[in-house]
Amino acid sequence: MFDKLVIVGPGLIGGSLGLAVREKGLARRIVGVGRRRASLARAMELGAVDETSLDLESAVAEADLIVLATGVEMIAQQAAAVLPRMRQGALLTDVGSAKAAICRSVEKAFSVSTAAERVRFIGGHPMAGSEQRGIGSARADLFRGAVCILTPTPSTDPDGAGLDIIRELWEAVGCRVREMTPEAHDRLIAQISHLPHVAAACLVNAASDDALDLAASGFLDTTRVASGEPALWVEICLANREALLAALAALGQELNGLARALNSGDAKALEALLARAKNRRDGRL
Amino acid sequence: MFDKLVIVGPGLIGGSLGLAVREKGLARRIVGVGRRRASLARAMELGAVDETSLDLESAVAEADLIVLATGVEMIAQQAAAVLPRMRQGALLTDVGSAKAAICRSVEKAFSVSTAAERVRFIGGHPMAGSEQRGIGSARADLFRGAVCILTPTPSTDPDGAGLDIIRELWEAVGCRVREMTPEAHDRLIAQISHLPHVAAACLVNAASDDALDLAASGFLDTTRVASGEPALWVEICLANREALLAALAALGQELNGLARALNSGDAKALEALLARAKNRRDGRL
Repeated sequence: MFDKLVIVGPGLIGGSLGLAVREKGLARRIVGVGRRRASLARAMELGAVDETSLDLESAVAEADLIVLATGVEMIAQQAAAVLPRMRQGALLTDVGSAKAAICRSVEKAFSVSTAAERVRFIGGHPMAGSEQRGIGSARADLFRGAVCILTPTPSTDPDGAGLDIIRELWEAVGCRVREMTPEAHDRLIAQISHLPHVAAACLVNAASDDALDLAASGFLDTTRVASGEPALWVEICLANREALLAALAALGQELNGLARALNSGDAKALEALLARAKNRRDGRL
Repeated sequence: MFDKLVIVGPGLIGGSLGLAVREKGLARRIVGVGRRRASLARAMELGAVDETSLDLESAVAEADLIVLATGVEMIAQQAAAVLPRMRQGALLTDVGSAKAAICRSVEKAFSVSTAAERVRFIGGHPMAGSEQRGIGSARADLFRGAVCILTPTPSTDPDGAGLDIIRELWEAVGCRVREMTPEAHDRLIAQISHLPHVAAACLVNAASDDALDLAASGFLDTTRVASGEPALWVEICLANREALLAALAALGQELNGLARALNSGDAKALEALLARAKNRRDGRL
């Protein structure tokens, strides 16, 4: 499927993609690009990449697919840096979990680069992984059954040729692919990923030390995502600020409605609220 | 340890206690009391009880231990009903997850009954179980490693003789026993159980159908408790209304602080908030 695949940032997501691509025989060479020798050596040792490089710009030459699997802030910068180096017909994609900011940056880079005529960019977000991080947690089956959202934009993939290939790639490693605008992605993901993340952190911080000391499995499950890497999540939250603020406001309304029902001892309203949540969640199982 | 143990409501918690008591040989006879023949038959079939009865008042005669394992509203009523029937030296306990309301009701029943001189009551709350319910989910090892909180009060166990025995019972089935006032229990449990429960429900309800449609494992874990039985949780929330309202206010403050940091793009404040949550949660693992 690919001759030379470059994975920039072979950590949990990038490394798992490398392992899956290798297992399925989807690329002849997989090159891992990073800044830390130790992580790259580990990616090599685990079989996630065939070659490694510390130099992004030289590594992407001759690649037919470049996957940016770093943090959301880094991705936008790296896209601009690699764009002029990409060869005719090459594809660029990413795995960032806030899409509008990234896609807008890449569109801007396309608008000022002659590369725009010879390459394609398709934003992506495989919804896999956990509060763990790093190449040590990577595994070939990470994407099996996961949803991968692709957010093509007219100016970075005008004929949709790039989209078809990127869709095939993610489907080949086990994803169910969904397509939407970067803005729709951010709005929906704010509700089911970014909001639950920060709400879990707030739940932990709202609990006293004495209460935490008693915490049982229910609490630990509810707050599992709060063990994610803070720096990574700060970037995500800021990159998706508008949508996350809207989701926070929606949660605030729900919590206020619940407090009102509780305060007035309105058992019917409380039960309706809890039953609605149960039915909606159980419908997803 | 006991000659006749009566478990009122042999569901997930009561049934698991029956199974564990039987496995450890802690009682000569276990009698299950309930209102539905089918559930009682199932408890018998699974070996959680040796005998069954539909009549609470006659079943408790000659019992040396009665465990009320029904809902928080029912427990208070049942305690008042069984009290006059209890024999000299018998113990009464419960597994309700809101303790102040139950303990106050039982204290009141004690204050108007001559039984108070011959029996003891010790409130209890084994923190085990899940969003599942019913005898079908019961298992002998449910309490292994779980915290069980006991909330003795001076008027229902003046010399602490009951507390020692109830503590031994829960330790024998695998619990780590903690002792505190009913009010302290309610305050702490509101923070790590009741609040996470209603917050999970609010998270589900704050998400649109389109967003829920994309929900991945992180969201489903965060909201697992929202699949609990609504009627049961309405009772718990109302029984622990004051403490839950205080916990909701604390969560609201945390969420507001986060929204402010996000709104002003304050990466440092956001990171401090997320890092504090991660460190506090990871400290519990």
